[in-house]
Amino acid sequence: MLKEAMYHRPKNEFAYAIDEQTLHIRVKTKRNDVEQAHLIYGDPYDYNLEEKCWISQKKEMTFNGSDGLHDYWLVAVTPEHRRLRYGFQLISGNETLFYTEKGFYEKEPNDAGFFFCFPYLNKKDVFTPPQWVNETVWYQIFPERFANGDSSIDPEGTLAWGSTEPTPKNFFGGDFQGVIDHLDYLEKLGITGLYFTPIFKAYSNHKYDTIDYMEIDPQFGDKETFKELVNKCHERGIRVMLDAVFNHSGFYFPQFQDVIEKGEQSQYKEWFHIHSFPLKTEEPANYDTFAYVPAMPKLNTEHPDVKTYLLDVARYWIEEFDIDGWRLDVANEVDHAFWRDFRATVKKAKPDAYILGEIWHDSMPWLQGDQFDAVMNYPLTTAITEYFAKDNISATEFVQAVTSVTNMYPETVNNVQFNLLGSHDTPRILTLSGENKEKVKLQMLVQFTMAGTPCIYYGDEIAMTGGQDPGCRKCMEWDEEKQDQDMFAFVQKLISLRKEYKGLRMNDGFGFIEGFENEEVIGYRKKDEANEYLVLINSSEDKKTVDLPTAFVNRKVVDLWISEERTLAETIDVEAGGFYLLALND
Amino acid sequence: MLKEAMYHRPKNEFAYAIDEQTLHIRVKTKRNDVEQAHLIYGDPYDYNLEEKCWISQKKEMTFNGSDGLHDYWLVAVTPEHRRLRYGFQLISGNETLFYTEKGFYEKEPNDAGFFFCFPYLNKKDVFTPPQWVNETVWYQIFPERFANGDSSIDPEGTLAWGSTEPTPKNFFGGDFQGVIDHLDYLEKLGITGLYFTPIFKAYSNHKYDTIDYMEIDPQFGDKETFKELVNKCHERGIRVMLDAVFNHSGFYFPQFQDVIEKGEQSQYKEWFHIHSFPLKTEEPANYDTFAYVPAMPKLNTEHPDVKTYLLDVARYWIEEFDIDGWRLDVANEVDHAFWRDFRATVKKAKPDAYILGEIWHDSMPWLQGDQFDAVMNYPLTTAITEYFAKDNISATEFVQAVTSVTNMYPETVNNVQFNLLGSHDTPRILTLSGENKEKVKLQMLVQFTMAGTPCIYYGDEIAMTGGQDPGCRKCMEWDEEKQDQDMFAFVQKLISLRKEYKGLRMNDGFGFIEGFENEEVIGYRKKDEANEYLVLINSSEDKKTVDLPTAFVNRKVVDLWISEERTLAETIDVEAGGFYLLALND
Repeated sequence: MLKEAMYHRPKNEFAYAIDEQTLHIRVKTKRNDVEQAHLIYGDPYDYNLEEKCWISQKKEMTFNGSDGLHDYWLVAVTPEHRRLRYGFQLISGNETLFYTEKGFYEKEPNDAGFFFCFPYLNKKDVFTPPQWVNETVWYQIFPERFANGDSSIDPEGTLAWGSTEPTPKNFFGGDFQGVIDHLDYLEKLGITGLYFTPIFKAYSNHKYDTIDYMEIDPQFGDKETFKELVNKCHERGIRVMLDAVFNHSGFYFPQFQDVIEKGEQSQYKEWFHIHSFPLKTEEPANYDTFAYVPAMPKLNTEHPDVKTYLLDVARYWIEEFDIDGWRLDVANEVDHAFWRDFRATVKKAKPDAYILGEIWHDSMPWLQGDQFDAVMNYPLTTAITEYFAKDNISATEFVQAVTSVTNMYPETVNNVQFNLLGSHDTPRILTLSGENKEKVKLQMLVQFTMAGTPCIYYGDEIAMTGGQDPGCRKCMEWDEEKQDQDMFAFVQKLISLRKEYKGLRMNDGFGFIEGFENEEVIGYRKKDEANEYLVLINSSEDKKTVDLPTAFVNRKVVDLWISEERTLAETIDVEAGGFYLLALND
Repeated sequence: MLKEAMYHRPKNEFAYAIDEQTLHIRVKTKRNDVEQAHLIYGDPYDYNLEEKCWISQKKEMTFNGSDGLHDYWLVAVTPEHRRLRYGFQLISGNETLFYTEKGFYEKEPNDAGFFFCFPYLNKKDVFTPPQWVNETVWYQIFPERFANGDSSIDPEGTLAWGSTEPTPKNFFGGDFQGVIDHLDYLEKLGITGLYFTPIFKAYSNHKYDTIDYMEIDPQFGDKETFKELVNKCHERGIRVMLDAVFNHSGFYFPQFQDVIEKGEQSQYKEWFHIHSFPLKTEEPANYDTFAYVPAMPKLNTEHPDVKTYLLDVARYWIEEFDIDGWRLDVANEVDHAFWRDFRATVKKAKPDAYILGEIWHDSMPWLQGDQFDAVMNYPLTTAITEYFAKDNISATEFVQAVTSVTNMYPETVNNVQFNLLGSHDTPRILTLSGENKEKVKLQMLVQFTMAGTPCIYYGDEIAMTGGQDPGCRKCMEWDEEKQDQDMFAFVQKLISLRKEYKGLRMNDGFGFIEGFENEEVIGYRKKDEANEYLVLINSSEDKKTVDLPTAFVNRKVVDLWISEERTLAETIDVEAGGFYLLALND
């Protein structure tokens, strides 16, 4: 066995509490190198006086998939006294290896001190995202483009709804009243969460250039209307999440304007990272900015006044408007210390608020329970779109990429990850898929049968198109004739199935059926207390036949998509572009 | 090259800020697998519009040692805008590989999104241990056994000083006056920090069973005497660190007694982790304890009242007595959330206080800048004693073990790690070394020429012996005839050299001279602004001759131990049990 490829390190995604009693322990080994893995574990203080050795137990680990280079193994263990020392017994043929913190051994070391340590499962440190998140289906609204319900507050120069293509600067007058007017539509679709891109006072149509974090932008309505919107959502069981742009302010943020005006005399000069005075607001600016944009000065979130101000903002919209979550823009560039205090503030105001970071890369440093509940799961997005939409990777590469994503974070994180196929920052999924609607459906099927919390970008459910920003920010199509009702019904059914079958939304027992990918069929299983599930997807242009794993042969299943019973044979045909969503409960 | 063995993940010890401008980036590869490693890096937002690609630079990485299975590579980089995307170019013969967050590629990906990300170097997140710690040489005092300076406060049944062997329960009357009386001795030795095991009111002789965290145990003196002790230490440039036993209280802690007495009616019932009432204080107890000791009930550090109480304690001894640091007993079993608040409280009271956790295993989760400054570096202790004291491992294994320890944490952590050869919890180093004093000297030489902050366990400097606790807790020998003056002079000189030559105490340029270990010679180099250093140690029973690396041949050096100049030849003889401590400054 290849010792160099084995990896484990306590905490992070390799050892973590899934609840107040239970730990998950993972290890990775070279692909196809290890046949069996066991956890060797015990209490750090258990000692056999007679045999002069530590007292350990053994538990088999489950194969948790392969990313192409490594295999992952997982086991859950419940230490009686919430304390654990542990290592791994790895077996291949006649060879046995013990992997511990102190290294590799052929015989099990007899001293607890050699082993990895999870010293204490303290409840306070358990990562506890809000329970409702996994049950939620989100719908992302770019408020300027969802619906214009009150033309009296249209900004100057507002264009007729959908009369022309979106540009970086034009306005169509979308507002809160528009959203309120279409809550029936949203409820009919079945979504249970609304995520709004910024709604605070700002100049642009996207509002990422905040002027006042305490005010609603008047083009969307007033606080009264927003309160009404939140209340009406809550009445229908729909949660509301807002966008917090705390990394940088807008150019017209009065505190920044004060520094431009008064320079070193400004009481706000430490609110930003200024290199010299007077301010130079053309590129290159003489202060820190978002990317290289002088109009987006980076906020000094380390300064006590700035921190107090922003934490007040975070609290205000929860306490006064009862919002249910914050999505954090450019979350990775703000200091960890700020986010820790942010979490404490938000969770104090609303213990089950959802904190979602916008991070596109590996986010483990923010997902240890002290900062965010989840991040926008772009690595999953990439795996799905590269395979289904763009044909850039093979089925095998897709399976490996998804395995890599699911083994990158604790399972507790996976269950609340924000899974999206697109957003206001990407081309629309239908456009990415070459306007092939069947491809979009398969991608949504994957999205809705993966652990996490899925989000539909407004209009994707009626097959809207649009390229990279600003193309993806078209006005929502409200002409039913122009809406794709077939796509709507498809999404509606997916949402309803996901709500009904817990196993579809959780990661319990998730695993790809090995070998199917060689036939260009994606197959994975999942489970919950009631059922086992089998998802089969053929995105190729040919009908495929796969041999079912023995455990499924001759089993009675419900085809959830058509609500019909059938008995599985030894093989199953999957039509080109077809799929199965099967539940086994016999 | 073996992809499976390569490992990097941002933050932790693989990517971290060493100051407000500079990042250290590390990667590990299979041993002897990679000939050259380069960092490919750039600003996340730099984009070449013409070539439609990310703009990256290249910087060579330094080989940072091998632990037997892996080679480590290190580079420092200063990103202009404090933002970094990066990957690794790894070269072996004609083969080149690019290692990024998204995987391995033969050609450099042209999109920043593929690369690892250190999104922003926020000053607040920089790990900043107190500067003085690296310059300090500690001396650990077990107060009951250092010196009895005031017999009027001896506890009942106190035995004559050193009249008999220590037992778990006997008393010899050591106290603060005894320490004050011997400050001249300590100053003569040269130490600049005193670490006291617990001094608060408790029944036992070791005082780890706290009764009152706000009171000095009367057998040691009163608060006045303690204040005098701290002041007198400070006058001599000696810092003072106390032991915080916050994981558990003692049995006679009044709050615990209250629960025993009043059961469910006690207002303190939530101060502990109680499973049922009434309390059962024999093993197995019906509440959480330290190990299985019913007399040491685990404190519920998650409870706001307990937290407030203990943080008050932490603040009180700093604010009222001006202590300089806290050593945290059983630090790994207390929740991370508590330690984060502890750090904030302590650093607010004294920004340069030292926070030292007692953790024997891999401690990365506590050393990310938000909790501790350092831990007791037992993995280094083990490497040293296994090789020099016990002959359990080969020179090669020693080199690999030390390389593993130094690559386990950020270099910023390494510079303040608490390096010890023994403590009140281990047999004394002389006893471990089979009473071979020359072996002890070589171990101290290693201890004092490693990065970190070394600590001498009281009496080791005069060659005291003692086995596992209670044997290692003998009364300090004050009869100069019985003190080993040669050992004292040796330690004194080590301390003085370490103070004079910065390079000896920092980890800059640290690396073993490859191949020497095959000759059973341990050789390593270090450097600072003024000098390069070469340490050579032969712990074998034969004279050894080693070929010096080309860079040292014909160089003029100062032999620091005897303060003599010499010119190196191509080879050097190292006597059995001998060593060289050479400084190159030509």
